[in-house]
Amino acid sequence: MCAPEIVRHVRDSAPRPSRRALFGLAGLAAAAAVVPAPAVATPRAGGVVDLTHTLTPQLPVWPGNPPIATVPVAWHAAGGFGQLALGYWEHTGTHLDAPAHRIEGAATTETLAVADLVAPLVVLDISAKAAVDADAVVTVADIDNWRAQHGEIPERAFVALHSGWERHLAEPSAFLNLDAQGRPHAPGFSGEATEYLVAQCGIVGAGVDTLSLDCGADPDYGAHTTLLGAGRYGVEMLANLAAVPPAGATVVVGAPTHAGGTGGPCRVLALT
Amino acid sequence: MCAPEIVRHVRDSAPRPSRRALFGLAGLAAAAAVVPAPAVATPRAGGVVDLTHTLTPQLPVWPGNPPIATVPVAWHAAGGFGQLALGYWEHTGTHLDAPAHRIEGAATTETLAVADLVAPLVVLDISAKAAVDADAVVTVADIDNWRAQHGEIPERAFVALHSGWERHLAEPSAFLNLDAQGRPHAPGFSGEATEYLVAQCGIVGAGVDTLSLDCGADPDYGAHTTLLGAGRYGVEMLANLAAVPPAGATVVVGAPTHAGGTGGPCRVLALT
Repeated sequence: MCAPEIVRHVRDSAPRPSRRALFGLAGLAAAAAVVPAPAVATPRAGGVVDLTHTLTPQLPVWPGNPPIATVPVAWHAAGGFGQLALGYWEHTGTHLDAPAHRIEGAATTETLAVADLVAPLVVLDISAKAAVDADAVVTVADIDNWRAQHGEIPERAFVALHSGWERHLAEPSAFLNLDAQGRPHAPGFSGEATEYLVAQCGIVGAGVDTLSLDCGADPDYGAHTTLLGAGRYGVEMLANLAAVPPAGATVVVGAPTHAGGTGGPCRVLALT
Repeated sequence: MCAPEIVRHVRDSAPRPSRRALFGLAGLAAAAAVVPAPAVATPRAGGVVDLTHTLTPQLPVWPGNPPIATVPVAWHAAGGFGQLALGYWEHTGTHLDAPAHRIEGAATTETLAVADLVAPLVVLDISAKAAVDADAVVTVADIDNWRAQHGEIPERAFVALHSGWERHLAEPSAFLNLDAQGRPHAPGFSGEATEYLVAQCGIVGAGVDTLSLDCGADPDYGAHTTLLGAGRYGVEMLANLAAVPPAGATVVVGAPTHAGGTGGPCRVLALT
């Protein structure tokens, strides 16, 4: 902060303070003569864990979707500022599923309730069964097991599935895990568990560390239909869920705000 | 939460509980028989203020930049899921300026320190002078006035300029406020104040409610050059700064993660 020690350090370590820095010091001295100032809230003490993948053209996408494309439209040599144009399909990278992704006419990205983007983070770890079954799903029993260990699911929580599938990212074909019909197989939520979380736990949203809320074995997309049909949101391709506690963190979902969107890349941070 | 009262409410209000809901209740009863669960941290009590504009093609952009474009690439009638393709230049809507926007070879979007995206929010209100001077800037004296009223600038703060310029949004030509040479005029940070905030207050970033960190009258882009040159980030086109306190809130900047980016649209939330 702008405390005297900091200013002294700047003064001592800067060989030749600029005119601007000297002006700043003069302003600081003037302010110090004013009435004592009230205390400012101290910064939060906890950590921040990034649950977002870096978005590159190499990051796996749902079959049929193209990779993100970028092209320079301004550069430093001409005008002094660099800028890229971006082109991508919404459901790319760590991204939001708005209700309109599954339900025609339902809520789009920019209409989600802002309060729902900050929520208690619940992490359901099914990595043990997912290690031996690519179509493993979160069941109601998994939720009850979490409750037995960590207490009730908090009100308006965001529930994330930690399947451990991220370990396949180094080999995109293993991450996609297509069958002979070209359909991906990876863990997800069962429709039944999703219904339980929505109807009885009042969650605001749910997320997965795979490409889809549903496991590849569900041809009805039960998790998508139940979650988005209830007006809640999903997040797919979450990262680093092994680095956050199963209970007690807060998630902040940086949902995109483009009008009429069905979803889009979003920064997801966990405050621990 | 999944508390008995909630479950009872669901049971009482649902005329015909589905088989799945009943299964859920059975699971809940089973879990209740398990060992007492430890308490879960309660959700945070404060509010969430959205500092982000809805991103539409009508939102003003810097002269020469195009509006965002969207086109459907999947729809519900064919496959059951809707999706848009998006095309835009990075510096559109409420958006991040990464150091690479101004400094060739400097840090790009995906390399910003995650911890710097969650910061104490300091709001400098210069709306009174900006109401009579479109080229009004934050000066070192404005910072000292804030300190006299609210205490020291917290360590690693994000400092936002509230100029009140948002009131012009209903009339894009007034928001752009081009002069005869086609150059926009709107408030910003002076280079001197930016240097003071970076060198002596150790801020992580700075934001404005206008299209540019610099006021239109600065041909040298002093604020951009100083802030981004020091490896800090900027956010332009912030919304709703009148709705957050001058001190005490925490800002979460949902910076984009596309590799090699010079910035991009981002969700910015204030936790109050």
